[in-house]
Order: sequence, then structure tokens, then C-alpha cells
Amino acid sequence: MFTISVRDHFMIAHSFRGQVFGPAQKLHGATYVVDVEFRRTELDPDGIVVDIGRASDGVREVLTALNFRNLDDEPAFRGRNTTTEFLAFVIHERMAAKIAAGELGPHARGLASLRVVLHESHVAWAAYEGELGR
Amino acid sequence: MFTISVRDHFMIAHSFRGQVFGPAQKLHGATYVVDVEFRRTELDPDGIVVDIGRASDGVREVLTALNFRNLDDEPAFRGRNTTTEFLAFVIHERMAAKIAAGELGPHARGLASLRVVLHESHVAWAAYEGELGR
Amino acid sequence: MFTISVRDHFMIAHSFRGQVFGPAQKLHGATYVVDVEFRRTELDPDGIVVDIGRASDGVREVLTALNFRNLDDEPAFRGRNTTTEFLAFVIHERMAAKIAAGELGPHARGLASLRVVLHESHVAWAAYEGELGR
Amino acid sequence: MFTISVRDHFMIAHSFRGQVFGPAQKLHGATYVVDVEFRRTELDPDGIVVDIGRASDGVREVLTALNFRNLDDEPAFRGRNTTTEFLAFVIHERMAAKIAAGELGPHARGLASLRVVLHESHVAWAAYEGELGR
Amino acid sequence: MFTISVRDHFMIAHSFRGQVFGPAQKLHGATYVVDVEFRRTELDPDGIVVDIGRASDGVREVLTALNFRNLDDEPAFRGRNTTTEFLAFVIHERMAAKIAAGELGPHARGLASLRVVLHESHVAWAAYEGELGR
Amino acid sequence: MFTISVRDHFMIAHSFRGQVFGPAQKLHGATYVVDVEFRRTELDPDGIVVDIGRASDGVREVLTALNFRNLDDEPAFRGRNTTTEFLAFVIHERMAAKIAAGELGPHARGLASLRVVLHESHVAWAAYEGELGR
Repeated sequence: MFTISVRDHFMIAHSFRGQVFGPAQKLHGATYVVDVEFRRTELDPDGIVVDIGRASDGVREVLTALNFRNLDDEPAFRGRNTTTEFLAFVIHERMAAKIAAGELGPHARGLASLRVVLHESHVAWAAYEGELGR
Repeated sequence: MFTISVRDHFMIAHSFRGQVFGPAQKLHGATYVVDVEFRRTELDPDGIVVDIGRASDGVREVLTALNFRNLDDEPAFRGRNTTTEFLAFVIHERMAAKIAAGELGPHARGLASLRVVLHESHVAWAAYEGELGR
Repeated sequence: MFTISVRDHFMIAHSFRGQVFGPAQKLHGATYVVDVEFRRTELDPDGIVVDIGRASDGVREVLTALNFRNLDDEPAFRGRNTTTEFLAFVIHERMAAKIAAGELGPHARGLASLRVVLHESHVAWAAYEGELGR
Repeated sequence: MFTISVRDHFMIAHSFRGQVFGPAQKLHGATYVVDVEFRRTELDPDGIVVDIGRASDGVREVLTALNFRNLDDEPAFRGRNTTTEFLAFVIHERMAAKIAAGELGPHARGLASLRVVLHESHVAWAAYEGELGR
Repeated sequence: MFTISVRDHFMIAHSFRGQVFGPAQKLHGATYVVDVEFRRTELDPDGIVVDIGRASDGVREVLTALNFRNLDDEPAFRGRNTTTEFLAFVIHERMAAKIAAGELGPHARGLASLRVVLHESHVAWAAYEGELGR
Repeated sequence: MFTISVRDHFMIAHSFRGQVFGPAQKLHGATYVVDVEFRRTELDPDGIVVDIGRASDGVREVLTALNFRNLDDEPAFRGRNTTTEFLAFVIHERMAAKIAAGELGPHARGLASLRVVLHESHVAWAAYEGELGR
């Protein structure tokens, strides 16, 4: 399996509902440093996993749609706790849609799976990984 | 697959038996920076992998039982080389027992597997990963 | 010069006023990973810079008073932009007060200066350093 | 699964052919910080994954054969773009040959697989992982 | 003293002349991860050290003029060994010129000094720091 | 001011005397990841701060004399608590002696000062910095 990974970040406000979240039920925020790993079993005709420029731009676009927001006000997340693990899933889903739409180049449709890691501090991070439909 | 990871550390003395260990056969020590990754296929009813507060406390308890010890004197490790890879396995086993006992909350029994990484320096680390019995 | 440093973190929501802040004028948030460096010219009678347990507890207390807050609602910051560099100064001031009050032990009054670094992402951080009155 | 990982680095010049590479078509260079992860299902008779001294030496030898070179001039890579993902594969192949030849010790033949990660900057890295023939 | 720091990177080829450089006399290359620290004694009227957007853009511009180059072919470095410490000085000088020209905003002329760090691997880095003329 | 820094590590056992050390009064151990920063005001005739090969070898020699030891048994430290800050001072002193003896090359006598940082975990580190006699 071949992979490439790119790193970027976004900064949001949000709050959680549920006793399990303790003081995080109050409005607070986080910087998420995001690693997106692209995986495929064979290199593409250019000898790469994916065009790293397009991949980075794609990640940047997905994160810009979240950056500098209060997630409590986002219609897309109504009724959901925007936990780190859930946000990793959301970013996975949005990157998968971009790949399916050909936005990372035609060869990117040969990608097998993605792993999205969100670092929320120096002592905690969460991830979602899943296959890509083809 | 969803995951969350938490980081903590412990500091021990020990020595190894066997020529393969060279100068590490002498009594020396290590700081182990420990990453524990909790994995499950679906989020729990709270929309999380596991209560991160309970998870961090569980890791802290397991590491406190090792911290500031000379592992050569620990009955649990008699006759064993407490290598980094072996200690990763020990911590995995003790965390698995806590999860089975419900100490990380009732939903934590839905966890699929754990990965425990022990960083012993900036150039070497070891890990053990394995499924959780349910 | 001798120093010791400890690391911790806090997570807040806030917004900025002023065109220079661009999209950060909207309510968003940040994780700040905080490094506090304690400096002195000679070691204390225990042969240390400061009791690292008390130092860590002191930093934790100062950060807990900020953690999981919307800083826009904090009376202490009314009319101020809670930029990263400003928050580094605030934490410096609060740590200095603890030291002056003897909360880090009597020998901690021999500390010469503090440096407080706030990491807001993998590509940006800010700091304030200043002497301690004695 | 048990693993150990070691880190080292090498520094090379190269250029790429193909529009997808943009300005990287010009002769430039990179530092690659390399992580090699050795995996096996059970510890060996010494209670380890592999002799970490031999493993580190093996990685060092493989990287020394690449270090301080212009990869455009290397016969082994004629007609190939020496992308980060391709170089991860090359290092995997060369480490696998060393293991098969017994250079990491007789027990190292019990290793199941290798993962080779090449970090090319603080925001991009690539990897190749694959099983070891036995 | 208040500071903010931003991180970016560039990738170059070069060679050194002089026995002291050993195998680095051959054409090779490096990724330099660059940290630029901006320092001032008091915050500016906006309550910041410098506009972080303009500061990041300025660093990006300076690095783009070096990125994806063979430094042996650059007229500006004729007859010079482009060591890491020398490149830190060059970047300092070019950033200082931008600040003096007002490219980081009028308040940036109040900056007291700059520190430029170039990380060339996980085990080596170099820096240049110096005051800014006003 | 120009600087270069190199990183290495050593692993020791020790114990502390004094109530302030709490559970660290028991025999335990640590990995210290060591950064040595060499400083000078002007580059040497080769255009460098110091020969990085000799500098790295010098650091390695100093750390090898400590590595894989129980510091409680070392005559050099009799009656001393081998705290992180104290060990930073010891390494500074030993590196300074090497430099004065010409072991890092004749130009290394032009070095102005050294800073030695010992990282004991991901959340704590200590340093000693001081001028070099000439």
C-alpha cells in the first residue's frame, strides 16, 4: 500500500450537549491540525499516489468551509455534537465527494481509502478511516 | 473505523538480560511517552468513541502503577525482559481489563481494538495492537 | 542561566474586532498548547529551578480559569482583543502573581524571569517574556 | 501485532519530469526523515521484535547509499521519477532484501511486514507498507 | 518582550566547497522548515506584534524566491557556501528589507528584532537573530 | 548571533533525595533527548558556526559517558541530585571543556556560548546556558 499525507488546520468554536462532556458543554473552541492520508495499492501513471498540489488544495477548500466558524450555528450539524471524531468523519466524507467528482484529477479515482486525523491538542487526537467508493 | 488517542508518560529504571541488549544490560532507565488509540466501527450513543476523560484517567492509572519504579524489582515482570514492545503489550492487557470491567463506561465495551505506542526517544518507538474480547 | 519548562493546554472561543483580523472577526476558537519556562541564575537549595510539581499545578490553575470559556464574555478582557500574544502576557502576569504570593514555594521567589509560549497551530505561535519583580 | 520503529534521515537532489510536478521539474532537493516500522505477530525468542541495533544499522546502510546524491544521476533510478512515495518503496525493497539475507539476525526472518514513511516537510509525508516474503 | 512566530518551508539543491563538508561536497539537497520569530517590546495599536497574515505572506515570498532551486546556480550566492546558518542570515536580511519597506504594514516598523531558524532534519537546525534598523 | 543545534539522547537510572521530589525519590529512570546549541557572533573562515560533524561527535562522546548508567553509582555525582537542570549544566561544562581543548576544531574556540536543553518527556524540559571562556 502506498500513501501520501498532507497537513493543514482550522479553528472553530462549538459546545457539546450531554453530561459526558463536562465543562466542554460550555461554548469553547479548538484548533484542529488535520492530517489527510491518501491510500492506493499501485502508483498512478505519473508514478504518484495523487497530485499533492491538488490534494492540498482540496483539503484547504474543505477546511476553509469550516474555519473561523461557530459550529453550533451551522445548519449541516444541527442536532449533532461536533466531536473531534465526528468532524474527522465529516472531512472524510467531503474529501471523498471531491475525489469522486474528479476534483483531485482523473487518476485520483484510483485511490482506495482515506484516513483523516484531527489533532486537538498535544495529548489528544481522533481519526476516521474508510474506503472510497469507486 | 473511528479512533481517539490520548498521550501520557511514565519513567522507569530497568536492565536487560541477553547479549543482544549490549550496554542496556546495565541498570539504566527510560521515559516512555505513551499513546493509547481506542478504535470502534461506529460511534457510541453519545456520538463519541469513548469518554475521553475516563479514557485518560484509565491510562493514567495504568501508568501510575509503573511510574517511578525499578521494573527489575516488580514481581509481575520476574524473569521477563521489560522491553519497550513487551511493555506496550502489558499496558494493552491492563487497559483491556479496565474496559472489560466497565471502568471506561458501559459503551466502552463496544470498542473493537486498542493500539498502544511507547516512544522511548526521538528515534525509537514500539507498539502493540490487538482486538478486544467482548 | 538555568531553566525548566512545562507544557499544558486550554481551549477557548473568541472573536476579534478590527479589519486586520479578517475572517477571525467571526466567533471561532483555538486550542493553545502552552509552554511556561521558569528561569533563574543559580539553582535553589534543593538543586532545582522550581518544584516542578508545584509549577505544573500553578500553570494548570491559571489555564483552568480560561479553559472551556468564550473569552468575549469574560469581564477581565472587556474591550480587549484576546490575541495569542496578549493571552501569553495575561498568563505571564497571573503566574508572576502566584510566584510573588509564594504559591510555588518560598524558593520560587528567586526566579529571575518567565517566558510563556502559546502554540495556536502547527505553523503559528506567540510568546511573552519578562522579568519577575522580587 | 508487535512493532518497533526507528528514525533516521538522508538528503538528496533530484528533479521530476511531468507537468503535474510544476516547479519541482527544476533541480531541487529534499531532506527525508525516514521511519521504518518492523512488524511481527509474536515476539522472538529474545522477547523483542528485532535487534534494534541491527535494525538501525540496516536502515543507516540503506540510507547511506542514497545520502548526499543527485538521484537524477543514479543508474538505479534511470527513467523514474524519484517521488517520495517511490523512494519509500525503494527503501522497503532494500530493507526486505537485508532481512531475507539474514543481516538483521536469524530471528528477523520472522518479521511479517514493514512500513517505511518518508517525511519531506512539516506538512507532507509518504509511505509504503508491504508484507515480507519468507 | 512579545513575539509571534510563523512556520513555512522550502526545498533546494546545493553543494559545498571545503574538506570540512565531507560527502556534502557532492550535489545534494535539503528541505528547510523555517521559523521566523518577530519581536517587539510593546504591542502595536491593534494589540498585536505584527499582522500574521502579512507576516506569513512575506515569509512565503522570501522562501518562494529560493524554493525549487539549485543554489549553486544562483548569482546571489556566487562564491559562498549556502550553509544552513548562512541561509538563515539571508532570509533575515530579506525579511528585514521587507519590513523596512513597509510591506508588513506601517506598524511593523516598530519590530525590534527577528530570529530565523532553519530546521534541516530531525537532529540539526541553525538560526540567525539580529536587531532591525529603524 | 548565529547558532547551530544538534540533537541526541541518553537513557539513565537515578533517584532523588528530598521531600520535594515525592515519588521520584524511588529509583526510576529517564530518557533525555538533548539539544546542544552552539552560538557565535560571526561565522568562522569556513562560513559555519562549527563543524557539525565534530560537534555531533563531541555531543555523542559526552552522552556516551552517561548513557546506560545508574547515576546514583557515579562518583562524579556523589551527594548531588542529578536533576534535569543539573545534568544540563554538567553537559554544558563537559562540552565547554572539549571546545577549550580544541576537540571541535581550532575555529570552535571562537564560539561565544552554549545552550543545552534536556527534554525529559513531552511535557517537561530543562536547560542551562552560559558563556564560553576564551
